[in-house]
Amino acid sequence: MARIGIFDSGVGGLTVHRAILERLPGLDTVYLGDTARLPYGTKSGDVVTHYSLRNARFLASRGIDLLVVACNTASALALPALRESLHLPVLGVVEPGARAAARATRGGRIGVIGTQSTIASGAYQQAIAQASPGSTVTARACPLFVPLAEEGWTDPEDEVVRLVARRYLAPLAEAGVDTLVLGCTHYPLLRGAIARELPGVALVDSAEAIAAEVGALVGATDPARPADHQFFVTDTPERFLGVAGRFLGRTVSRAEHVDV
Amino acid sequence: MARIGIFDSGVGGLTVHRAILERLPGLDTVYLGDTARLPYGTKSGDVVTHYSLRNARFLASRGIDLLVVACNTASALALPALRESLHLPVLGVVEPGARAAARATRGGRIGVIGTQSTIASGAYQQAIAQASPGSTVTARACPLFVPLAEEGWTDPEDEVVRLVARRYLAPLAEAGVDTLVLGCTHYPLLRGAIARELPGVALVDSAEAIAAEVGALVGATDPARPADHQFFVTDTPERFLGVAGRFLGRTVSRAEHVDV
Repeated sequence: MARIGIFDSGVGGLTVHRAILERLPGLDTVYLGDTARLPYGTKSGDVVTHYSLRNARFLASRGIDLLVVACNTASALALPALRESLHLPVLGVVEPGARAAARATRGGRIGVIGTQSTIASGAYQQAIAQASPGSTVTARACPLFVPLAEEGWTDPEDEVVRLVARRYLAPLAEAGVDTLVLGCTHYPLLRGAIARELPGVALVDSAEAIAAEVGALVGATDPARPADHQFFVTDTPERFLGVAGRFLGRTVSRAEHVDV
Repeated sequence: MARIGIFDSGVGGLTVHRAILERLPGLDTVYLGDTARLPYGTKSGDVVTHYSLRNARFLASRGIDLLVVACNTASALALPALRESLHLPVLGVVEPGARAAARATRGGRIGVIGTQSTIASGAYQQAIAQASPGSTVTARACPLFVPLAEEGWTDPEDEVVRLVARRYLAPLAEAGVDTLVLGCTHYPLLRGAIARELPGVALVDSAEAIAAEVGALVGATDPARPADHQFFVTDTPERFLGVAGRFLGRTVSRAEHVDV
């Protein structure tokens, strides 16, 4: 049975963990949240790559067979360095998300939202252009979406949530996008508010997109097998454990602190 | 002429830099923004102390005479460790802010707002109780204020700003505070919005409070002297330089990257 390593800047990557296990129950996983240095979305390519390599080396030392980069910013900025440095298959969320958008679009108008660093990198824009030649791409950074989700302010009826979503998404509505990639692990928590501002637009969750590609690589798993799930964080575990449930959909009872 | 070292998790400490130089022109300064690991306000005491010690050791190696901890979270969590480890006077913003609040209050009802880690530490609550025995303290974490300020959404007429300020500050209004400590370097940028929700309440800016105490330690300076100001950051300088002006009130033309 394959053992999958997953890293993220913090807790958001648990949405990817969840999507992978819904599709592949029985799989062993090792998760690392770099909570001492989060967020990655406002930091430079150099720094994000440096942290990503350290995360990846730790996971490689735990005997994984495949590395999943759950963080969109790390996927956008650090994938070439990770692939060069590791002797393992490495999957990021950007390419699966772009391919899913290419399949979903009806009119060839694709939007993507993400952190400042993800959008500034142009990685999604480039991947979508490759996966869907001829489509037009409208990209927008939404810096307040992560703190809103971490504060638990996600209800589409909440006036703050509604106003922030409207301000960020208005340019995408004006561009007439028919498909929108949620290019950050936190954004699926705001799906309701995003859908409200962009009615009829297909929302692509890159967590689900990468889970499908992991499934294609790993093949069938045995759901009856008792799977082993390990969680590590670089800051103390308390805050991670406190919010993990919101992202994973079930309680995480134990996470171990590690310096990487 | 004394040389002052100032560190912060990022750009916010420039409000302290600015307040010190307005009071003490001609003073030499060395500023370090730990932009590769910001923010500190959501991280544990262990991690914030670890980063603070590394920042302080770098500044000590630059020949400073006095260390100013501009970051409220680092001041709240790491001051004892810094004082133990450095052979220099170390000033944090918490105690000056608490003393300024004690002087400002008329009815003994003091509020304090800050990051999650600052408020959870209880450092302000304790310092206010010491500086103003018999006063009551109401404390509240305001996690969205930092991202709002960094996004540049600070106009009190902005509906998002107004609604977020109202939600966070309503418990302070209900408690009838007459004085409020702005316990985070970013909050003075939201002063207008905060004042609107708490009319008649004295707002204490801990940047100004610490500048007064630095002045008392350093004595008079020569405003005609050409002063030397050095800026260092742990991530690449571009983003720091881009927003520094908003916090410092004048352009920063050069910052050097450093690993600490």
